[in-house]
Amino acid sequence: MVTSPRPVSLTGIKPTGVPHVGNYVGAIRPAIALTAHYDAFYFIADYHALTTVRDPAVLDEYTHSVAASWLACGLDPSAVTLYRQSDVPETFELQWVLSCMTAKGLMNRAHAYKAARDRNVDAGVEDLDSGVSMGLFNYPVLMAADILIMAADVVPVGRDQVQHVEYARDIAERFNLAYGSRFALPLPEHVTAEDREESTLPGLDGRKMSKSYDNTIPLFAGRDALRKLVRRMKTDSTPVEEPKDPDSSALFAFYRQFADPEACAALRARMLAGGMGWGEMKDVVFEQLDAVLSGPRERYDALMSDRGELDAILRSGADRARERAHGVLGSVRAAVGIA
Amino acid sequence: MVTSPRPVSLTGIKPTGVPHVGNYVGAIRPAIALTAHYDAFYFIADYHALTTVRDPAVLDEYTHSVAASWLACGLDPSAVTLYRQSDVPETFELQWVLSCMTAKGLMNRAHAYKAARDRNVDAGVEDLDSGVSMGLFNYPVLMAADILIMAADVVPVGRDQVQHVEYARDIAERFNLAYGSRFALPLPEHVTAEDREESTLPGLDGRKMSKSYDNTIPLFAGRDALRKLVRRMKTDSTPVEEPKDPDSSALFAFYRQFADPEACAALRARMLAGGMGWGEMKDVVFEQLDAVLSGPRERYDALMSDRGELDAILRSGADRARERAHGVLGSVRAAVGIA
Repeated sequence: MVTSPRPVSLTGIKPTGVPHVGNYVGAIRPAIALTAHYDAFYFIADYHALTTVRDPAVLDEYTHSVAASWLACGLDPSAVTLYRQSDVPETFELQWVLSCMTAKGLMNRAHAYKAARDRNVDAGVEDLDSGVSMGLFNYPVLMAADILIMAADVVPVGRDQVQHVEYARDIAERFNLAYGSRFALPLPEHVTAEDREESTLPGLDGRKMSKSYDNTIPLFAGRDALRKLVRRMKTDSTPVEEPKDPDSSALFAFYRQFADPEACAALRARMLAGGMGWGEMKDVVFEQLDAVLSGPRERYDALMSDRGELDAILRSGADRARERAHGVLGSVRAAVGIA
Repeated sequence: MVTSPRPVSLTGIKPTGVPHVGNYVGAIRPAIALTAHYDAFYFIADYHALTTVRDPAVLDEYTHSVAASWLACGLDPSAVTLYRQSDVPETFELQWVLSCMTAKGLMNRAHAYKAARDRNVDAGVEDLDSGVSMGLFNYPVLMAADILIMAADVVPVGRDQVQHVEYARDIAERFNLAYGSRFALPLPEHVTAEDREESTLPGLDGRKMSKSYDNTIPLFAGRDALRKLVRRMKTDSTPVEEPKDPDSSALFAFYRQFADPEACAALRARMLAGGMGWGEMKDVVFEQLDAVLSGPRERYDALMSDRGELDAILRSGADRARERAHGVLGSVRAAVGIA
C-alpha cells in the first residue's frame, strides 16, 4: 500500500491558454495556498484538452503556458508534484479497469454529457448524441482514474466539479466491492471552497471577470497594457470632490484582492473623505496590481522563453507522480488477476 | 513510421478456459496456419476478459491456459509475437486518444451493446442500460486500439467480428482526418475465413461442437477420457454388416478433420463395403484423434505444470509487441501535440 505522511490532495488543471487575473484570484492563488496543508499533486490535464483542442501546436503551447503560469504565481515544484496527465500512462490502464466496474447508467447522468444533450434539444437536433465524442462521454471515468491512480485523499473542487469526485468515489467503491479483500482503493473526498465574495474579481465592466463576458485582464499583460486595461475599468460619474462608497465600487473590490488590509483601510478612508477622482484611484489600483504581478510576469516570461527549465520541472514531477501511480497500478493489477 | 517486411496481421484471443476440439478445428488450427503468410501478432485479451471474469485466480488461470493451448497446438513463438494485452499499456493510452476521435453514436450501434439492450427488452427491464458496464460499451474502442497500436494491416476474424475491424478503420480515418498530415494510422482490413463446412466439427450429439450445446470434447482430455467421450458420439442403428453412408455420418465428418486424404478414402471404402460396426469405427476415430492430439496434450501439460517457460515466452512476446506499440504511440503523441 502507498503511504504518505500528510493527506494527499489532487487537482487537475485544464490547459486552456494564458489565465486572466480573475483565474489568479479565484483559482490559482487559493489552490497554491492549499498546498501548504497537503501532499499536493497538481496535474495539467493535457489529454483531457484533447476532447476539444485539435491543433497540436496549440495544445503544446497551452500545456506549457499553464504550467509556467502556476509556477510563476508561486507554486513550489519541490513541495508540489506538478506533472502532465500524459506523463502518467498508468492512468489510462487504470481507466480501463475502472470502466469494467462502472455502470453505463452512471455516465448517462453525468453533467457534461447531459448538458451536451440539452444543447441538442435546444437546437432541435434529433440525434441527442450528435457531436458527443466518446472522450466527452468517458471523461468522468478518466477523471476517476486521475484521482484514484494517485490514491488521493482529497480533491479540492469548485461546486460544479463535485459530481466528478462523487463518481470517482462510487467507482472506487465498486472496485473495492469486487476486490477489496485483496486491495482497496482509498475513497477520495471533495473539498469545496466556500463561494466567498472575496475570491470573485470584478472584470472591466464590473461584472465577474470571465472569458465569456470578454471583460478580462490577462494575468501576464505587460506594465503598459495593464495600465491601459485598468484605465478602462467601469466607474460611475461621481465628481472628484464627492465622497465615494467603497462597498459599491467594483474598482475598490478589485483593489482589495491585491492590497493588504492596511492599504485597503487607507484607500477606503480616502474614498469616503472625497477629493480623489476615479482617474487617480485607477492609478493607485494599477500600481498595486503591477506591484503584485510584475514578479510573476517576469518569471512567466523567463519560463516561456527558455522551455528547458519548465520541461525539467515537469519531468521531475512526472517521475514522482509515476512512482506513486506505478505502486497503485501494481496493486490493482495483482488484485484483478493480471500478474 | 513503423515498417515491416510482410503484412502485419493481428488476432485477439479471449481467455475463456481450456478450448475444446471444435475450437481447435474451427479457430486455433486455421489461425496458426495463417501465421505462415503474415508477420503475425497474437494477443491474449486478458483485460477484455475483465468485463466478465471477476475471480483473479480464474483470470490468471485462463490466461495461462489459452497461451499454453495455442503453443501446444503448434504456434511458433519465435515466428509469431504472442503477448498479453495487459503487457502493452500503450494500448490504453491510445484508446483515450481514439475515444476523442470516436462519435458516441458509433458505439450506440455496436453489436454487443445492442444485444445487451435487446436482452433487457426481452426481459422486460425498463432501463435498457441495466447491467451494461462502460467496459462493454467501450469495448469497440479498446479493440480499435488493440489493432491500431500494432499498425496492423489485416485482422482475420469470424463474420460476427467484422464490425470491430470496420469500427477500427472508421476511427483511424477520423484520426487521420485530424492529424494525417503529421502521422497517419494504417487502415486495417478484415479477412474473413469462408464458413467452410470442413472447419465445422460435429459434437457428441452430432450438432456443431459448441459449449452452448454441452456436446464438447476438451482439447487436452487424457487418452482414457478421450476414448470414453468418442464412444459417446451419436450414431444410428445401422447393423454391423450393412454399408454405411460416410456423407451423412457425423463420426466420419469428425474423422475427416484429423486424418489425411488417403486414410479418409480407406475408411470411406470400408464404410461403404459394410461389415464395420459403429463400435469399431469409434475405435478408429479415437486412435486417430489421440494420435493427432497426444503430442499437443503432453506439451500443454508440460507448459501448465511449470509456468516458467510459458511466462518467459509471454515476456519475450511482450517485449517485441511493446517495441512496436511504443513506436506507433510515439508518432500518435507527437501528432496530437503531446510531446
